[in-house]
Amino acid sequence: MSDESTDDRHEHGNALSEFRAFRERMNTEILGENNLVINRFFALDGRAYEAGALDVKTKELLGLVASLVLRCDDCVTYHLIRCAEEGVSRDAAFETLSIGLVVGGSIVIPHLRRAVDRWNELERARS
Amino acid sequence: MSDESTDDRHEHGNALSEFRAFRERMNTEILGENNLVINRFFALDGRAYEAGALDVKTKELLGLVASLVLRCDDCVTYHLIRCAEEGVSRDAAFETLSIGLVVGGSIVIPHLRRAVDRWNELERARS
Amino acid sequence: MSDESTDDRHEHGNALSEFRAFRERMNTEILGENNLVINRFFALDGRAYEAGALDVKTKELLGLVASLVLRCDDCVTYHLIRCAEEGVSRDAAFETLSIGLVVGGSIVIPHLRRAVDRWNELERARS
Amino acid sequence: MSDESTDDRHEHGNALSEFRAFRERMNTEILGENNLVINRFFALDGRAYEAGALDVKTKELLGLVASLVLRCDDCVTYHLIRCAEEGVSRDAAFETLSIGLVVGGSIVIPHLRRAVDRWNELERARS
Amino acid sequence: MSDESTDDRHEHGNALSEFRAFRERMNTEILGENNLVINRFFALDGRAYEAGALDVKTKELLGLVASLVLRCDDCVTYHLIRCAEEGVSRDAAFETLSIGLVVGGSIVIPHLRRAVDRWNELERARS
Amino acid sequence: MSDESTDDRHEHGNALSEFRAFRERMNTEILGENNLVINRFFALDGRAYEAGALDVKTKELLGLVASLVLRCDDCVTYHLIRCAEEGVSRDAAFETLSIGLVVGGSIVIPHLRRAVDRWNELERARS
Repeated sequence: MSDESTDDRHEHGNALSEFRAFRERMNTEILGENNLVINRFFALDGRAYEAGALDVKTKELLGLVASLVLRCDDCVTYHLIRCAEEGVSRDAAFETLSIGLVVGGSIVIPHLRRAVDRWNELERARS
Repeated sequence: MSDESTDDRHEHGNALSEFRAFRERMNTEILGENNLVINRFFALDGRAYEAGALDVKTKELLGLVASLVLRCDDCVTYHLIRCAEEGVSRDAAFETLSIGLVVGGSIVIPHLRRAVDRWNELERARS
Repeated sequence: MSDESTDDRHEHGNALSEFRAFRERMNTEILGENNLVINRFFALDGRAYEAGALDVKTKELLGLVASLVLRCDDCVTYHLIRCAEEGVSRDAAFETLSIGLVVGGSIVIPHLRRAVDRWNELERARS
Repeated sequence: MSDESTDDRHEHGNALSEFRAFRERMNTEILGENNLVINRFFALDGRAYEAGALDVKTKELLGLVASLVLRCDDCVTYHLIRCAEEGVSRDAAFETLSIGLVVGGSIVIPHLRRAVDRWNELERARS
Repeated sequence: MSDESTDDRHEHGNALSEFRAFRERMNTEILGENNLVINRFFALDGRAYEAGALDVKTKELLGLVASLVLRCDDCVTYHLIRCAEEGVSRDAAFETLSIGLVVGGSIVIPHLRRAVDRWNELERARS
Repeated sequence: MSDESTDDRHEHGNALSEFRAFRERMNTEILGENNLVINRFFALDGRAYEAGALDVKTKELLGLVASLVLRCDDCVTYHLIRCAEEGVSRDAAFETLSIGLVVGGSIVIPHLRRAVDRWNELERARS
């Protein structure tokens, strides 16, 4: 259990900003290390979601469901942010999460709870 | 590492109550969304542990060991709560955890630590 | 390593038909057992991919990428068959697989090889 | 996909005997290597399933569900053999598998198919 | 997401000490339970990293990469501590992490961020 | 269970050559598709194991243990081939596998059996 999911911190509304700040700070540190393999991997990770035969929105949904079945809260948060930016509807987000739930099983449920909490946080931030 | 495992929060004795509060709040939100697939999955998740050829206690032990080898702290916590409610003995809980440890390997150990901490918390709550 | 990946069997062109025959035979046996939880899960698994806010094609791509990162050859085969039936293009299939590769890492490569082999088999069957 | 699951090999009835022969031969080779850590692990693996607060039958069900959610066909086969030896009923086996299915999700289904095929093979061998 | 990775706690410099305190307290509790299987497993876990054909440093790198691809932050932290104690260089640590990243994919990145943060914390503690 | 583990195929000594032939054929097909992300990933996968602060032999051991704990037989086979080419001793290979066994648990054992079988096959090919 990750305690970012507790009421308390979310009511202070800082979970997403903390996620972003830590992510940005560490990405800078990691890329600054100039490890060729790591830096190329990060670049490739960006390329994978660019528009091609599939549009960006669909690719972000793919990233979201893959993150959910692999049960990585940070990755789910990142793709939820990107989905929100791309205008994915609440229903489309829930259907994507529902497929992740069926594929990955009940072990996914705690991550689903945190994902929905994040999505709500993102919606509140937009309104 | 989830920091719900630090001494500090557990000494305040609120980890389990926070887990329950977040779980209940999010389950209500998720089910209220009326996504048919998700809602049926949640119902099915409940049915799977009802008495049949196997009794409820055995099924909760199955849920516990499955959660441990898949390394989901929230799921382990949930099944430990249910095991305690069903009267599973401390020895039976540890034997179940020991099988999860052997099957899943040393990667399970951090989750075992948090599981034992939870179990102790549950025992204190009963006494 | 699954030996369905050897040249020999694929050149005989029977891998897909064997997959389908075993899948169908065992589904019949399993559903005939009348285990309520299993039968409802199978029904739910079908529902998850029905059209809603997302169309069927997108949902099959979600199933495909989830299967690939979880490294289940049978599941990948199943969703490739469904993608082909829904008219997913070769480029769209490869982009979906490429996201699975980046998310899941090099450990996915053996499954990617078998997936591409399957896709080629499906294309030959259509032409 | 493992093709041991095809009709053909099972109808020749040699899948289980092959599994046992390979397992026995390799265990002998591995233990003969005298790697202390490996040999102690193998001994410990045996001890974990001995009777204690939980009886052997329950422990084998725990091993079965853990193997299923981790999606290891060989491990599932081994615990099904042991369950059959311990007199686990068909209903109890299916309920255990159903919990593994709900916990692990649809990704478990191909392993469930092979597990049921194995169980049927074990029942035929007894009759 | 585990919030031990937020700036705040790390700037207080107590994350590692909390990790160690909880680890030590729970290990004592677990071993005091005298569950034979668990206690032998813990002993075996120690033996696996002792010098043999491979030196201790190499074995700790093996433990590190295995922990990273299995995405266990606590295990990564533990092996980073051990690597630092064995005099592993920053470059060697990053190369090991880079292999874990390529093998395990982008799903590993959040754990990589926390690993690098930990490594920096360990370096600061030494200087 | 993958049936490449049966006595029969290995006694004909063709398992490794089949593995290599399929791997080579599919790599050619996949790279010929010119999907930028996939092709860059394959290139990066090669770079990760080149000499740097760590020598090639150590990196191959890292690849081996990562493959074993993630339970990918093909990946294990590939790194065993590379380890043999780099002159890794039998003892060093077994110690690496033993760490993978302890980290990954008994679920790793079927893969360990196939790994040892492969290693023996590689040794016979050299003598």
